[in-house]
Amino acid sequence: MLNLSVLNESSFDPEKLNKYASIMCCGNGYLGVRATHEEHYTLQTRGMYLAGVYHRAGRNETNERVNLPDVLGLELYLDGENFTLLSGEVLRWERELAFANGELRRSVVWRSSKGKRYRISSRRFVSMDQLSLIALQFSVTPLDGSAQMRLSTGIDATQTNSGRQHLDEVSVRVFDQQYIQGVYGTQDRAAEVVISARCQLDTESESWFTAKNRRLNCHHSFEVEEGQKVTFEKIVWVTHRSDKTLSQASFARNNLRDLTAHAAKGYDALLEMTACAWENLWQASRVTVCSEHPEDQLALDYAVWHLNTMMPAQDERCSIGAKGLTGEGYKGHVFWDTEIFLLPFYLFTSPQNARHLLRYRWLNLPGAREKARRNGWSGALFPWESASNGQEETPEFAAINIRTGIRQKVASALAEHHIVADIAWAVVAYWQATHDSAFMRNEGLTLLTETATFWIARAIDINGRLEIHDVIGPDEYTEHVNNNAYTNYMAWHNVAHALQLMHHFERKDERFEQAAQNFLERLWLPQPIQAGVIPQDDTFMSKPAIDLSRYKNTAGKQTILLDYSRTEVNEMQILKQADVVMLTYLLPERFTHSQCLANLAYYEPLTIHDSSLSQSVHGIVAARSGEVASAYQFWQEGAAIDLGGDAHSSDDGIHAAATGAIWSGVIQGFAGVTVVDGELNLSPLLPGQWQRLQFPLKWRTAHLNIIVENQTLMVNTTEPVTLTVWGETLTILDSHTFTVDDFYLAVHGTATTRGEA
Amino acid sequence: MLNLSVLNESSFDPEKLNKYASIMCCGNGYLGVRATHEEHYTLQTRGMYLAGVYHRAGRNETNERVNLPDVLGLELYLDGENFTLLSGEVLRWERELAFANGELRRSVVWRSSKGKRYRISSRRFVSMDQLSLIALQFSVTPLDGSAQMRLSTGIDATQTNSGRQHLDEVSVRVFDQQYIQGVYGTQDRAAEVVISARCQLDTESESWFTAKNRRLNCHHSFEVEEGQKVTFEKIVWVTHRSDKTLSQASFARNNLRDLTAHAAKGYDALLEMTACAWENLWQASRVTVCSEHPEDQLALDYAVWHLNTMMPAQDERCSIGAKGLTGEGYKGHVFWDTEIFLLPFYLFTSPQNARHLLRYRWLNLPGAREKARRNGWSGALFPWESASNGQEETPEFAAINIRTGIRQKVASALAEHHIVADIAWAVVAYWQATHDSAFMRNEGLTLLTETATFWIARAIDINGRLEIHDVIGPDEYTEHVNNNAYTNYMAWHNVAHALQLMHHFERKDERFEQAAQNFLERLWLPQPIQAGVIPQDDTFMSKPAIDLSRYKNTAGKQTILLDYSRTEVNEMQILKQADVVMLTYLLPERFTHSQCLANLAYYEPLTIHDSSLSQSVHGIVAARSGEVASAYQFWQEGAAIDLGGDAHSSDDGIHAAATGAIWSGVIQGFAGVTVVDGELNLSPLLPGQWQRLQFPLKWRTAHLNIIVENQTLMVNTTEPVTLTVWGETLTILDSHTFTVDDFYLAVHGTATTRGEA
Repeated sequence: MLNLSVLNESSFDPEKLNKYASIMCCGNGYLGVRATHEEHYTLQTRGMYLAGVYHRAGRNETNERVNLPDVLGLELYLDGENFTLLSGEVLRWERELAFANGELRRSVVWRSSKGKRYRISSRRFVSMDQLSLIALQFSVTPLDGSAQMRLSTGIDATQTNSGRQHLDEVSVRVFDQQYIQGVYGTQDRAAEVVISARCQLDTESESWFTAKNRRLNCHHSFEVEEGQKVTFEKIVWVTHRSDKTLSQASFARNNLRDLTAHAAKGYDALLEMTACAWENLWQASRVTVCSEHPEDQLALDYAVWHLNTMMPAQDERCSIGAKGLTGEGYKGHVFWDTEIFLLPFYLFTSPQNARHLLRYRWLNLPGAREKARRNGWSGALFPWESASNGQEETPEFAAINIRTGIRQKVASALAEHHIVADIAWAVVAYWQATHDSAFMRNEGLTLLTETATFWIARAIDINGRLEIHDVIGPDEYTEHVNNNAYTNYMAWHNVAHALQLMHHFERKDERFEQAAQNFLERLWLPQPIQAGVIPQDDTFMSKPAIDLSRYKNTAGKQTILLDYSRTEVNEMQILKQADVVMLTYLLPERFTHSQCLANLAYYEPLTIHDSSLSQSVHGIVAARSGEVASAYQFWQEGAAIDLGGDAHSSDDGIHAAATGAIWSGVIQGFAGVTVVDGELNLSPLLPGQWQRLQFPLKWRTAHLNIIVENQTLMVNTTEPVTLTVWGETLTILDSHTFTVDDFYLAVHGTATTRGEA
Repeated sequence: MLNLSVLNESSFDPEKLNKYASIMCCGNGYLGVRATHEEHYTLQTRGMYLAGVYHRAGRNETNERVNLPDVLGLELYLDGENFTLLSGEVLRWERELAFANGELRRSVVWRSSKGKRYRISSRRFVSMDQLSLIALQFSVTPLDGSAQMRLSTGIDATQTNSGRQHLDEVSVRVFDQQYIQGVYGTQDRAAEVVISARCQLDTESESWFTAKNRRLNCHHSFEVEEGQKVTFEKIVWVTHRSDKTLSQASFARNNLRDLTAHAAKGYDALLEMTACAWENLWQASRVTVCSEHPEDQLALDYAVWHLNTMMPAQDERCSIGAKGLTGEGYKGHVFWDTEIFLLPFYLFTSPQNARHLLRYRWLNLPGAREKARRNGWSGALFPWESASNGQEETPEFAAINIRTGIRQKVASALAEHHIVADIAWAVVAYWQATHDSAFMRNEGLTLLTETATFWIARAIDINGRLEIHDVIGPDEYTEHVNNNAYTNYMAWHNVAHALQLMHHFERKDERFEQAAQNFLERLWLPQPIQAGVIPQDDTFMSKPAIDLSRYKNTAGKQTILLDYSRTEVNEMQILKQADVVMLTYLLPERFTHSQCLANLAYYEPLTIHDSSLSQSVHGIVAARSGEVASAYQFWQEGAAIDLGGDAHSSDDGIHAAATGAIWSGVIQGFAGVTVVDGELNLSPLLPGQWQRLQFPLKWRTAHLNIIVENQTLMVNTTEPVTLTVWGETLTILDSHTFTVDDFYLAVHGTATTRGEA
């Protein structure tokens, strides 16, 4: 029995409406629904999103994830007074998201400004079993005498993305006095969305429907006795399409038919079904810790919950945006975050999802080839920001500088080319973890060679060696540099594995082979200059450094840009996140522990951690290098990005990559899961605050269960598996326990030896 | 000294946010700004509109008045708490619109939920002197200890028309640390809007600017001592254009230059200037009554205020929408209301504005000709709903029937052709009141002959007489009838005056003359059938009647349509408003008092008054017919349409025509101002509750001042004028007093005699 966490919101705080709307957002990879309250608040941003539904809403805009008509909003009048927690008094408050089944619950006792008390409860979920399904129950009990109530809810298409409207209202309908349906089309007519809902009240009421100004509503007016609980139930079905194989009428009718069939089962049965689906997901992916800090388990459940709700497993044309399906931040665009920070979780828990994310890139190769061509290179240059069709979605110009009126060209799309190698890295990781030759033959090799071809074209000959000029590494505070270490090493890794896997699969391409060989022999890989420190790029080491402590105190807020222009920042040793540390995380076999530690020690003081991707990577590298106390601190700081006290850091959605990093910090950090020479390594080293760590791990065809406890490591496997633990390689048939002796050997013997090799 | 009314909102009631936002809406005919509070409420609909700025926002939509980016919204944090009157306690509340200068003021003492008290005051106005100018002062005084405050406001382009977005954000700028500017374009690129604002705080603050998600904001964070009042001042300048004579940069720069120049004068000086402009308007149009009911004077000031704020005197391409510039109802479209219910006010107070409204129709003749052609007729068939370019804006289909899914064709545009004669009626009225031959020669005769030509083409020969088939009269509950009395009489009036004025101006058109003569001789004018009652149409008298009392109790709400379908209503003697009563109002010389009374008595019980245009017309006809008590009741009911207790009747804007009717009810009703045979008639008969009535009246070149008091009528004139008072015609050189004897003669003698003639 999994004893899953429950995420609580401890009190009603109008300032945190959007934080909790994001972190408690419900979803299933197909659909995401922000955890907004049923009643309206001016500070509350509602949101419902469908994976893959993007649209461009006018001049100076880019494609963005469409905020759909709202289905959760509800106007409640209690004895003539509009229910809002801003007025009257909140006498009791409970709100929680149960990770076990994804149910979001709230129970409030409210005293109106007229002095009457009411209990108002709601529960709802987005089904993990039926991806189109959202269910809501909303109950009211008058506690001081009978009450006259009016309740209105429906489908509200006045919803916008901050005032940008993407949808035309095509039609609105009412069927059988309880079903409502709205059909909407994106203004470019490329996609259609149908939303139907069954609305039922469990008491006699005067009821009527209205459709006006893009709002289709059902209204109920009724009297309730003191102590009587009335419950309103709304079952919603959301579908979309971008093809026109069916007539619009048939498409809408099918939606209604499916709603009818499922709604007939009732809220509780539907919840049971979604709980079963979640049970399977948790079995495959839950990480359990015994920690002095109970919030560590909460953070892990929180992360794994969101990693499951953001995965669009139903449609390979979709990948994961930087905010998942929890908000409009970054306009729902897909970045390198997906391959680097999210893919490892899927790789080790549900590799078919990792394959899916790579298929998304493969399907979008035409856009990547086109971008490379347009810039004068061959191969595939993946867009820095990607949406539904693989074209570059990064706005050509940044938001206007409101002081100068000038729009600056956005540099990321022009120079942040490491995404190409990042995708290749993910293909290699997928191959190593799965040995899925079918994928490699069909898609993997194409992705590897196309990306490798890009690098071969991208490098230039400088006095006989190949260099990569004018790039931006992950550290976006250092733009347009030459021989960025991260980029060069990753490009080398990309080309090397393309070549190796071409050989492995006996794919012949002599011209490519020659070019790749030449590239690998001649590409400049920045070498350590002092005690293992690798220069971030050609000029970094010569730049001045300043005291960054005050900016580090406000990490994540980019306060440095209030004091210095981007140009000034660029000319100093100031890192948003550390490229070289990142590199040592991604290519562990290339660097010794002491090199890792040296770079960590050198770059950390220069790093503000203004990217949510920064701390967690530092933590993993620290953990792997034996610096477990600082690793634990980094990990906690990473977990606090969304779960911490900042009221507004998650307003426009959670940090998807940061949730991936919570998982990675534990599995790839403290448990020391790495892939070295294509094989699985573990070298766990738990923080002092943790007594036990348990997690499932998928490797090739084996399902492993791993327990780290009392200075032992227990591995159970469904079939024989070869792995290296603390430097000792062996094949386990069904289970094996490694003891602390191995551990000491690893930390003070083998590992150190390897580190100094 | 005019002692103008002040419109009060006596308490803060969240249910009435939109009622007061409409009835206290400020404007100047160029710009209308809804009287929303600075702080946000979910139930509050903000609105700022420019006369003539319409746009169509997608499929299934029509052109609508664009809701512009908001400039009045303001977020205020007082000691960390978001200021909203929903929370905490309102200890003192005053809110008023001063009609003398158009200043809207609010003063609130608020206790936050933390228990601290603050005084929050604001005052603002839309300038009648500088049409682009809006000025706001917002002050806060902490009353219990010092306070930490944060204030954010700017230009918020997330504003929509119920979720429909019309504008692209072109650019946003900040100049000199205090000016902000947004440039917006309609999505069809036809129009551009520039909004600039100067933001100043009268105390030291930390301040910064942000531009994100269509919101350009300035923020101030500051500390205030107990008892210290801090004032934030915002001066806004709004311009638009549909031509491209200037570059966009120049157009935006000019806007900023004009703002800078005017803002430099300061709030109080700018208010003084607008007060002067208002003073002139009030001198020309104020109606003063001494009544037992002080709300009568308020209603008149309210009406005249709005009649002045809705008149787009600056641009003849604009006319007046059904809600003026106070809301989005009827999408800002122009109906027959303008010529019939609003034009009389302008005709008798500022005839240049009446001319302006007719010029709008004249400029839009191409659309009207096109519509007639497309339907197989000649002449001009004016659109039932009109926006900026004279094309028919009535949606082809009504809103979808949410139960059947069927969209019904909208009948008004197809058959409510009386608007053609209504416009012609207004041209004739303008001619009679002004003798403006220049207008008649250039525009008037064209309007008259084009409309007459339409009727000549529209009529059909039935057994030797001309009939007009398949029309809808003003009574929209009776559709597709033949020989609607209102339409036939008005068409006859149209053709007759076209012919007469062609002769008068010696304009020769033999073909037209012959056709017109033939039409006038042969058009069937429904004749009285019993005691003077004129049948509304060919079939009306044969339809069954039902008891309408319960529907009359909810007049204006169209509750009949909840019980009967439109088709059923059409087959019964049920009137939305009474056509024949309307006819006797517009063509008083054609009907005797007893005929008027007979039709009033016959039709009133069959009339629900579901149109806001209904009661007032009944009142005028009753007043003219001597039924002054019932006239007063009708007038009061008409005044209550916006000013009465209904919390939601004005949510989407005031009833512009109803404000015209408040004025008309007094001047054309109780004062008995009529035009008979082209000459001015007065036969005042005040309600028993009124002791005195005074009003200015423009007639030809004379400015009259008329006082009815103590059963006398005093007329002062700036130059000799001939008029008929209580049946007695005489020429007044400068002033004259008529006595009660004349009055008795009129009511019991002459009038009765004339009535029986």
